[in-house]
Formats: sequence, structure tokens, C-alpha cells
Amino acid sequence: MVFKDKVVAAFQKIQDSICQGLEQTDGKGKFEEELWSREGGGGGRTRILQNGNVIEKGGVNFSAVHGKLPDAIKKSFKLESDDFFATGVSIVMHPNNPFVPIIHMNIRYFEMDDQTRWFGGGIDLTPHYVIDTDARFFHHLLKQTCDKFDASFYPKFKAHADDYFFIRHREETRGVGGIFYDKLKPENTGLDFDRLLDFSAAVGNTFLPAYTELIDRNRDTDFNTEEQEWQYLRRSRYAEFNLVYDAGTKFGLETNGRIESILMSLPPMAKWVYNYQAIPDSAEADTLSKLKKGIEWA
Amino acid sequence: MVFKDKVVAAFQKIQDSICQGLEQTDGKGKFEEELWSREGGGGGRTRILQNGNVIEKGGVNFSAVHGKLPDAIKKSFKLESDDFFATGVSIVMHPNNPFVPIIHMNIRYFEMDDQTRWFGGGIDLTPHYVIDTDARFFHHLLKQTCDKFDASFYPKFKAHADDYFFIRHREETRGVGGIFYDKLKPENTGLDFDRLLDFSAAVGNTFLPAYTELIDRNRDTDFNTEEQEWQYLRRSRYAEFNLVYDAGTKFGLETNGRIESILMSLPPMAKWVYNYQAIPDSAEADTLSKLKKGIEWA
Repeated sequence: MVFKDKVVAAFQKIQDSICQGLEQTDGKGKFEEELWSREGGGGGRTRILQNGNVIEKGGVNFSAVHGKLPDAIKKSFKLESDDFFATGVSIVMHPNNPFVPIIHMNIRYFEMDDQTRWFGGGIDLTPHYVIDTDARFFHHLLKQTCDKFDASFYPKFKAHADDYFFIRHREETRGVGGIFYDKLKPENTGLDFDRLLDFSAAVGNTFLPAYTELIDRNRDTDFNTEEQEWQYLRRSRYAEFNLVYDAGTKFGLETNGRIESILMSLPPMAKWVYNYQAIPDSAEADTLSKLKKGIEWA
Repeated sequence: MVFKDKVVAAFQKIQDSICQGLEQTDGKGKFEEELWSREGGGGGRTRILQNGNVIEKGGVNFSAVHGKLPDAIKKSFKLESDDFFATGVSIVMHPNNPFVPIIHMNIRYFEMDDQTRWFGGGIDLTPHYVIDTDARFFHHLLKQTCDKFDASFYPKFKAHADDYFFIRHREETRGVGGIFYDKLKPENTGLDFDRLLDFSAAVGNTFLPAYTELIDRNRDTDFNTEEQEWQYLRRSRYAEFNLVYDAGTKFGLETNGRIESILMSLPPMAKWVYNYQAIPDSAEADTLSKLKKGIEWA
């Protein structure tokens, strides 16, 4: 089996198991699938769940595309060939309840030729209200997954996530972070490609137990209108991050990707309030004080 | 009087008269002012109106800032000096009623030295539902204002607006356009700077009669939940344009501008629905068919 076909099979399996697990946890919402193909080559399976018990809007998308790289990118890579292959699974979940966090995951594999190929990915948590025990649980699980492969992974990838999931113009992190990694290959990890695929799949398979637990802990927490308003405000920050900074979104918009699949990450509803100021010592102020880099949650 | 002080005085007067006129038309909402100063030099008067009879959220902002240009910009201008001065008035209005359009206006003046200075600006209309007679009225007024100065202005600036206010990833214009111009100076217009200030002020003074008329025509139109949902969806496109493409927003975010003043343009509430499809022959489909470049409204 060609290596990239192994990656595709593993990623599709992850998409399937996550969708199945989320439907079971949600208890009401069902994923609707759209199959799409790309003019330049390849396509994807976009799966969206809207108006569930827990999940207001979420997507679990798989894609595997190939074709010719744009000239500018080809030059920057200094490559002879310009055939590329890229596959990935991307997830964003926006829950109804402000005490259930927003979550994002992406695992991806990119290949030009035997010398130019790598894995990338990440998973990060954006609670509307930061609950310390939840943040610690989440990071602990991620550290466990990373440590099975290399003890240096978690601290490195956690720091990278702090830097990446950062809303510079607000001077706040998107949430409590997680892990983010890119261009993993044997030269910089000491792991061969099969082992790196195992790592990528292990990250993918950490999503469901992590999010299911966080849903179960918080889905029945009562909330009032003020708390829901705060949720809408935090969602508008999420939209700002994705539209202004997110590399995947930018790349998708610039390369005529499938817009509805790319922008499924945007919240079902968001509010921008002019010059919002949290009341001192409130739960909102407490959350804002924890949206910063360098907190050791694990 | 130094020229830039004349510009500042004219722009502040425009801000004052627009705020006064909008409050009168709205009948309930009052602008709240925040004065701010910038570390590098200068400052502004941010004026926000929220929860009015007609205007749900809107801002009429004046700023006049000065300081040292970032090195990269200095190099690209090939300048000896790096002292800049910039002043402008920026407006965005988000109305309650989906039949009242969103409107935006900006007039600005930039100066480095006697050789390097210019006026820029624009005004454009984003109806949630395109009403042909309103679009024609709006463009007719803009053409009238432009024609007083140069018959070539309206066609040139209208085409520029079509290109600028374009949501590339959606392949649709933000609304029915208007005018957009930049770097106007004697060399490329045949008008001296005093006359260009007159033009800039004339654009500024077109805002109030234009928007007041459009409000009065539509403020009492009944609307239902579906029409309001469509308004929220159009607002999410507006947020996409401003966060992904708008040059002023990008510049502000990259240069540590006053975030709340820059992002006052974002809607009070917006919705992202996955893969929305307008019903054929509906009012929504009609509007979508008119969100394209090159329609001669005047």
C-alpha cells in the first residue's frame, strides 16, 4: 500500500469514529454529509451537525486533494516537481451551553515527493468560561498521548499552541490552548513515517474521550441570559481569530478551497459589543485573566 | 492656518453634524463619546450609538494621529523623513430593520511632506435586501456630488468601489457599492489641495441626506423572523469582508490602533449558517443576483 493511501484510510477511520461518538453523546443531532470534489484534483467529505442537544453547530471534515502547487509556493519550497498531495481531518464544535467549551482539532499530512513530506496538526480548547479542572484534564490527556511518542513533544507543542492560538490585536489567547505541531518528519523527530502516522492518529483518537468527558461534565449546568451573552461575545473573538489569523482558513480562502467547508468553523451566532468591560472579580474577569500564554495546565 | 489643521477642523465639523443629524433621525439613541490618545502621537473621538430606534449599533469616529512610520512602510515610499500625519472620519451603521441598509463612509487625509500627501475615502451601501429605487437614489446623489468637481470622478470611483468592496471568497460584492478613491492629489486630479478638501467635505456632507432618506423610506416596513435571519446572515458576510479584506481594519490591527474604534464596524449580532441556499425566485435570491460588479445604478 502506498504510504499516502495508508494515511487516507487512517484519517477517514478517525472521521468516522468521531462522528459516531459525537452523535451518540449528543443524543439528538445527526451529521449531514456532503461529498465534494475539487477541480484541480481530489475532494472531501464534509459532515456538519446543527441544532443538536449539546452541539449547536459543528463540523468534522475530511479531505484529500492533489494537484499542482501555485508557482509562488513552488519557488519558496525550491522544488523540481509541483505535484502535491494533502489530506486532513478538521473539526470545530460550537456547543449550546456556555459551560461546554468550543473545541478544535486538525490532523494533516502533506507530500510533494519522498524528501518533501510531513505531518502537522493540533487540538485546542476554547472554554467560554475557563474551568481549571477541565483545562487540566484536557492538557493531561494531551500530554499522555504525546509522552507515548516522545517526552519532548508535549512541552514543545504546548508552547507552539500558546503562540499560534493567540489573538494578537486583543492580546489574549483564543482559549486554554492545547498542542500545535507542524512539519514533523524523521529528520526532526527521530520517528519514521509509520510512527509519525501513529502519532497523528493518536492525536485524532484523543479528541473523542477528551470532548465527551468535557461535555458530560458540563452539559447540564444551568445558565442565564448574561452567561449566554458572554458566550456570544467569546464566539465573536473566535470568529476574529479564524478570519484574521488562522493559517488554514487563510490558505483555503486564497486558494479557492470549498468555502462552506472552510468556514464551518465560524460560530452559528456571535455578538460584537462595543468596548465590553468585565466586572471586576466576576467569572468573566476570571476567564479573561486566564487567556494568556505560558500557563502550565498539565 | 497650516493646511492639515484646516482638514482637521473640516473633518471634526463633519463628525459633529453627522452625529447630530443621526440622533435627530433616530429619535432615541444617543452617541456616547470616548476620547483617546495614542502613545505615538495624536488621538481621536470615538462616538458610538447602541440600541436606538433605528440604529442597533453604529459609530462615527474621528481621529488625527501623527508619529513615525514603521521602517517597512518608509522604505516602500522611498522617503527621507518618516514623520507622518493622518486624519479621517469613519462611519458604519447597523440598523435594526432588515429593510434599512447598512452604510459605511470614510474620508481621510495623509501627509508626510509637501510632496507626499493625498486624500482618500469612500462611501458604500450594503442593503440586506436590495431595493432598486434606493440603490439608484444613493448612486444618483453620489454622482451629483462627484460631478460638481470632475465628470470623470463618479465613473472612476464607482468602478473602484465595485472592485474594492468585493468578498472574493464568496464571489459577491459587499452590497450595491458606491464610490471609493485614494491618493487624490493635484498631479492626478488637476485640483489643488484646497479644492480636494472641498471634495472630501462634499463626500462627507452627502452621507447625512443620503442615509436619512434611506432610513425614512424603510424604517416602518414590517419584517418577520425569516427576514431578520437573513439580515443576520448578511451581517456575517459584512464581518467576513471587514476582517479578511478591509485595508483600514488590517492596517489598524497590524499597527496597534485602538481596537474598539477599529472594530466598531462589526455587527452587533451575526449568524453563520452552513451552506445557506436562497429559495429560487425569493427576495433573498433577487438580492444575491444583484451583488455583482458593474451594475449602473446612477
